[in-house]
Amino acid sequence: MTKIEARTPKGFRDFLGVDAKVRQEVINTFTKVFERFGFEPLYTPALEYAEVLKGKYGEEEKLIYEFEDRGGRQVALRYDQTVPLARVVANYPEITKPYKRYQIQPVWRAENPQKGRFREFIQVDIDTIGSSSLLVEAETISCIVSAMEDLGFKNFNLKINDREVFAGLPNSVISTIDKLDKIGEEGVVALLKNQSYSDFQARDILKKVTDSKPTATVGKLFDLLNKYKISQDLYSFDPSLARGLDYYTGLIFELEIEGYSAGSVGGGGRYDKLIGTFTDNQQPAMGFSFGFDRILEAMESFGLISKNSAITQVLVTIFNPDLLSESLETVSFLRKQEVNTEIVLDPDAKLDKQIKYADQKNIPFVIVVGPEEVKNKVVALKNLKTTKQELVKLTQVPTLIDQNKAE
Amino acid sequence: MTKIEARTPKGFRDFLGVDAKVRQEVINTFTKVFERFGFEPLYTPALEYAEVLKGKYGEEEKLIYEFEDRGGRQVALRYDQTVPLARVVANYPEITKPYKRYQIQPVWRAENPQKGRFREFIQVDIDTIGSSSLLVEAETISCIVSAMEDLGFKNFNLKINDREVFAGLPNSVISTIDKLDKIGEEGVVALLKNQSYSDFQARDILKKVTDSKPTATVGKLFDLLNKYKISQDLYSFDPSLARGLDYYTGLIFELEIEGYSAGSVGGGGRYDKLIGTFTDNQQPAMGFSFGFDRILEAMESFGLISKNSAITQVLVTIFNPDLLSESLETVSFLRKQEVNTEIVLDPDAKLDKQIKYADQKNIPFVIVVGPEEVKNKVVALKNLKTTKQELVKLTQVPTLIDQNKAE
Repeated sequence: MTKIEARTPKGFRDFLGVDAKVRQEVINTFTKVFERFGFEPLYTPALEYAEVLKGKYGEEEKLIYEFEDRGGRQVALRYDQTVPLARVVANYPEITKPYKRYQIQPVWRAENPQKGRFREFIQVDIDTIGSSSLLVEAETISCIVSAMEDLGFKNFNLKINDREVFAGLPNSVISTIDKLDKIGEEGVVALLKNQSYSDFQARDILKKVTDSKPTATVGKLFDLLNKYKISQDLYSFDPSLARGLDYYTGLIFELEIEGYSAGSVGGGGRYDKLIGTFTDNQQPAMGFSFGFDRILEAMESFGLISKNSAITQVLVTIFNPDLLSESLETVSFLRKQEVNTEIVLDPDAKLDKQIKYADQKNIPFVIVVGPEEVKNKVVALKNLKTTKQELVKLTQVPTLIDQNKAE
Repeated sequence: MTKIEARTPKGFRDFLGVDAKVRQEVINTFTKVFERFGFEPLYTPALEYAEVLKGKYGEEEKLIYEFEDRGGRQVALRYDQTVPLARVVANYPEITKPYKRYQIQPVWRAENPQKGRFREFIQVDIDTIGSSSLLVEAETISCIVSAMEDLGFKNFNLKINDREVFAGLPNSVISTIDKLDKIGEEGVVALLKNQSYSDFQARDILKKVTDSKPTATVGKLFDLLNKYKISQDLYSFDPSLARGLDYYTGLIFELEIEGYSAGSVGGGGRYDKLIGTFTDNQQPAMGFSFGFDRILEAMESFGLISKNSAITQVLVTIFNPDLLSESLETVSFLRKQEVNTEIVLDPDAKLDKQIKYADQKNIPFVIVVGPEEVKNKVVALKNLKTTKQELVKLTQVPTLIDQNKAE
């Protein structure tokens, strides 16, 4: 039989063991913070009718994974979580408004795979539908700050701008100015000149934008953020921030982490017109999306993730087949105490081979239940890191393991 | 602009609010139990190369969502989690064996949508790769029992059989006998007669199978389960259990819940040959898969799920715009105490309209911070269910809300 090559398509990833666990834990932190702010979970299907997704993403639309299903229907894989949210709001007019939801699911984009760019990746979104109040922006920012703090970040900056700053400027100019951070003033001027502005005009446009004072709306938002007692070090007005997507209609945001240079780790803004593409019942809306992979990468680079933490805390060995019952009783007791416990699955292996499995899997403790231990009603608990071994009562083991975790 | 019809494709579902929350919590329970037994998480991509999935599922292969991507590659959506696991094991030969993993992700099948049958649904799998020891089966069963108990189930039965019972019988006969539970003895005899057996032969085959005594392997397993002190009420030998899939090679299992008649809620068995279709490094393997939707349905029917539990515990109202700061301070304090708290997002709405939002969203408590309350350094805490309102110190609120949850 021909062997099939075991590989994932380019831009797609497997997550095993501790890597998978870390991702779960970061998602759990987001979930906890979002619920603390009153956002509720939403799951939408991986597949939508293609017509639902199309006409929403501008040029990027070509990156949608779209295909014809066996029934001849055009379907497409979720490309972001904002358009499915808009579809849900139109689909369930009975939802109590304001509707605050979070959504943490994979999205798929047929990007050119490269470092840090994948075809399947998780998005972490919070959105509020049905309120025009600036309290929505303030709540969202307060939630962003809490999430970042709970993840362990200390120095980050939410750049804030108002689309009003660009009033009267064509989209092509706006998206050129958005590149200021990356290509500098001369780069922007050069690109504007390509758009048939004179050097003088280009510099004048750029100066007018970058000299803009905070709009009245931005001023009001800052007053609100003071009421929340959010440190002013954590946000700033940035008149050159534009955000690519066409659907923003008011305040816009981008989140950066100091010392992490791969780019912004999140962005969002108010989009009061998008829901109306699905329903006559137009709804004001505002949202923010965290880049999950970049957040993880930044956490790693700042040492906020411990990858040494094993999932299994203790491996119980089998001294010999006659003592299997005693080992199994030990295992069952520890699991009842909610200690993550494994039993050696090869009862005939020699003890050192049994322990090697714990070493390879980074399991911190091994327990041996031999004839002497059984006689004295104790177990031998070995700390594989310190190589210290002690005879202890089984009932003491959960506490000893907890203490080690806390150290 | 033409409005686009807001709907999901048939067989695909949205999950909102409490429904989404319940699903998360059930997944969290599974996760916790699996890790207690030393299984570690695995995530595989939604898309695999089509050739990885094909030739594994027999006739069902036609239900695979398969398409050509923009690069001309044949890709397919995850159909189950066993084949991707086999691919992973071949892909990462360095994984420490035995490799115990759990996987809880959606799978996609182009089924005919009908009651209780969907095109996107979550599977909950545990598998152990790299050990032929019967301890693997015993560990898996112990884990299944713990998961069911932690979900709240009391009366369930794991049916156990050994493929050896069918030695010498063709697959068509085996899969006919598997229907005994559904179509009864006469039904099976009729189907066997269609396969050109005489009435006598058909009855003889069926009798031989159903009269089978537990094999030596089943006997050894039962001894092990006694060592785990698993109640004998929770499992039984069932010689007519066959399981459809071709890849099982040893003991097989099916889980039923007493009083839940929609069918089995899980199944699995030993499959020692599947990994070898990807790699010369053949690996013994054993696994079990829970049907997530049926488990949820059974939990609901037994009252094991409370859908009244709101995610947000308290709504803080805004007495008037001048007292916004005081309301925001209240909100921030409660969130720091990890109380899920919302602030009214329409500061100009009348108080009864503000409270109506809490009613609609099933939020159990409302807080009013009016001028009198501010003066006396208290808040008015109203229980919307009992309609009882009391003036309390803000610091007391978290405890009062916790007590209400426990009731």
